[in-house]
Amino acid sequence: MKNFVFENKTKIYFGKGQIENLGKETARFGKKVLLVYGGGSIKKIGLYDEVIGRLNDFGLTVYELAGVEPNPRHTTVNKGAAICKKERIDVLLAVGGGSVIDATKAIAAAAKYEGTDCWDLVSGKASVKETLPIITVLTLSATGSEMDGGCVISNMDTNEKLGYFAPDNNPDVSFLDPTYTYSVSAYQTASGSADIMSHVFDVAYFTTSDQMDMLLRVQEEVLKTVVRFAPIAIKNPENYEARANLMWASSWALNGFIYDGLRQSAACHAMEHELSAFYDITHGHGLAILTPRWLRYVLDEKTAPRIKRFGVNVFGIDRTLSDSDGADASITALENFYFVTLGLKSRLSDLGIDDKNFKIMAEKACKVRGGSLQGFATLYPSDVEKIYRLCL
Amino acid sequence: MKNFVFENKTKIYFGKGQIENLGKETARFGKKVLLVYGGGSIKKIGLYDEVIGRLNDFGLTVYELAGVEPNPRHTTVNKGAAICKKERIDVLLAVGGGSVIDATKAIAAAAKYEGTDCWDLVSGKASVKETLPIITVLTLSATGSEMDGGCVISNMDTNEKLGYFAPDNNPDVSFLDPTYTYSVSAYQTASGSADIMSHVFDVAYFTTSDQMDMLLRVQEEVLKTVVRFAPIAIKNPENYEARANLMWASSWALNGFIYDGLRQSAACHAMEHELSAFYDITHGHGLAILTPRWLRYVLDEKTAPRIKRFGVNVFGIDRTLSDSDGADASITALENFYFVTLGLKSRLSDLGIDDKNFKIMAEKACKVRGGSLQGFATLYPSDVEKIYRLCL
Repeated sequence: MKNFVFENKTKIYFGKGQIENLGKETARFGKKVLLVYGGGSIKKIGLYDEVIGRLNDFGLTVYELAGVEPNPRHTTVNKGAAICKKERIDVLLAVGGGSVIDATKAIAAAAKYEGTDCWDLVSGKASVKETLPIITVLTLSATGSEMDGGCVISNMDTNEKLGYFAPDNNPDVSFLDPTYTYSVSAYQTASGSADIMSHVFDVAYFTTSDQMDMLLRVQEEVLKTVVRFAPIAIKNPENYEARANLMWASSWALNGFIYDGLRQSAACHAMEHELSAFYDITHGHGLAILTPRWLRYVLDEKTAPRIKRFGVNVFGIDRTLSDSDGADASITALENFYFVTLGLKSRLSDLGIDDKNFKIMAEKACKVRGGSLQGFATLYPSDVEKIYRLCL
Repeated sequence: MKNFVFENKTKIYFGKGQIENLGKETARFGKKVLLVYGGGSIKKIGLYDEVIGRLNDFGLTVYELAGVEPNPRHTTVNKGAAICKKERIDVLLAVGGGSVIDATKAIAAAAKYEGTDCWDLVSGKASVKETLPIITVLTLSATGSEMDGGCVISNMDTNEKLGYFAPDNNPDVSFLDPTYTYSVSAYQTASGSADIMSHVFDVAYFTTSDQMDMLLRVQEEVLKTVVRFAPIAIKNPENYEARANLMWASSWALNGFIYDGLRQSAACHAMEHELSAFYDITHGHGLAILTPRWLRYVLDEKTAPRIKRFGVNVFGIDRTLSDSDGADASITALENFYFVTLGLKSRLSDLGIDDKNFKIMAEKACKVRGGSLQGFATLYPSDVEKIYRLCL
């Protein structure tokens, strides 16, 4: 195992009705709030009115940035940062899923940046020095952005989707009320669940390195939680226990609890970001399509034991199988879970994607990570292109 | 499941050699440091010189409070607080196990208290309002004090051992280097391991209430980690993997990761504090003796399913047993683990304790918790006295 540093400043209010603490927590940071949200689903479920009411109770002045896109655009971030500078905003309040929270994080940094284009920060041309405080109210269990310091922003002018990480970019306070995810569709629940699992897979679980045994087992528990509760939430959207387990699992998958210093290049995330950047698809769905093909592509003597262990401990496949057969059965179990149990379409062609851009996407995916994707196996652009083809 | 608030400010440096960051982290809080330690074992393993060297590198002025007792005394805390006030200490540095860290937490609060006796704060007569910053270097995997806001202080004048909890009392930074526990004796390793397990048992695992499924499973993984690695650490004290797993497990058992708002009255801890207060025994050993007897005492139709589940998932007992037989087998498995595998003595009489004070101890244990011990089962003083007798 490697050495690691753990630090997570985010304060979590978990459970039904915790929104009653929103006004008090927001007022700690100042008087002027920029409320950031997406396409308006928060109005349908009554959350918008609830939030405004809570802020009004504490006499806060609320500005708004609505319409954040599912893959949030750098232009939207720039718009938010301009409001912050003009109105001297004290604190940002993101109400939504990972896209809204990611956009809010970039706004928090861009608001304190002397330049006018947040892309300087996202692309690493300039570094994040200071940020505005961030509060989030989560409405989708998926990205883990509610309790980590990462954010991913898209630039559709250049077909780029890039992420950066800054510890100061962790939300200060996040409200996780499972009832706010009752209205999440079966499709978004399935995609979000694949996203949660992919964070566990991609950052630490699928590796040939040693890990702290306790954390490896806990990673498996987070995966088992998704496998157990995602189908329940899809079948019965208002099952509190299922929504609660998925919600806390989404945070655990990325908040640092389950890692011991092993941070890989997150191969599937790198490949998926190109899919979203070119085709604007749902991130978690792209990950669900890519992951089993990636596992089959990297399956060899070195990787087979961990892939088999995954299937044994998470899906209960027969532990007496050989490493190779066990790994094969594990991947099949994952495919069945994504494409049968959760009902996600299994092929890029089902999403209207053909092979036209695979070569350039493969090159870009590797370029972002310094020329190749390291980790469970080393992938060069020619490998990535082959994996995309396996997904067709 | 209940609602909960999660917040943990402690920054963890985990792994071999992380002490290289000590000077930098300490200097963040000021120039004058009070170094707090125990009986001098940190000098034997070279840690004292290492710490002083790191502090000197950053030009810090170091004051010392040595000789903190295994069950730290309020008189020692008062001594430390007096040094802080006189010398205008900026930051406290605890180097040791849970006792040293607990004493340091109480010093951090007493240093900012206008009174001269920390017992006012410990007993709740006055409340903790402000604290000095705290840094810890852990040398014993047991209490979890390195990453939580609780501390327990003993007053031998009145035979009282009392704890209090304040979120601001979390250490700001803790250094967890498993190699510092290489010299911990087999006895202390065993006692510390029982302490870790007891935190999981006592705060949340043994309950008849609903819990978030993911967290219940993770609690079992923490327990399994201790069951797997404590015997390895006892047999081979310099096994890094075993010491590392035990060390992070000790923090996890109490840092809030594994709880979802379910905080019970910690019956075994309440009963053990009286043992230590009267007889100054090792806390973890007292817990090991009490826990199986407590489980047998509270075993009934309501509690049997959870006790059986514990044995099935942690010790691999036969899941086809009836609840009652399964629970019985679980308790026997725990007894075997504590008293055979870990080699701890199983009876209070082995520690020279007789029944002379049982009645008054039972009354005090319940009085501290408002008259009875709530949780898995409700215990009154007459019940507690019977449990003490089962331990003779």
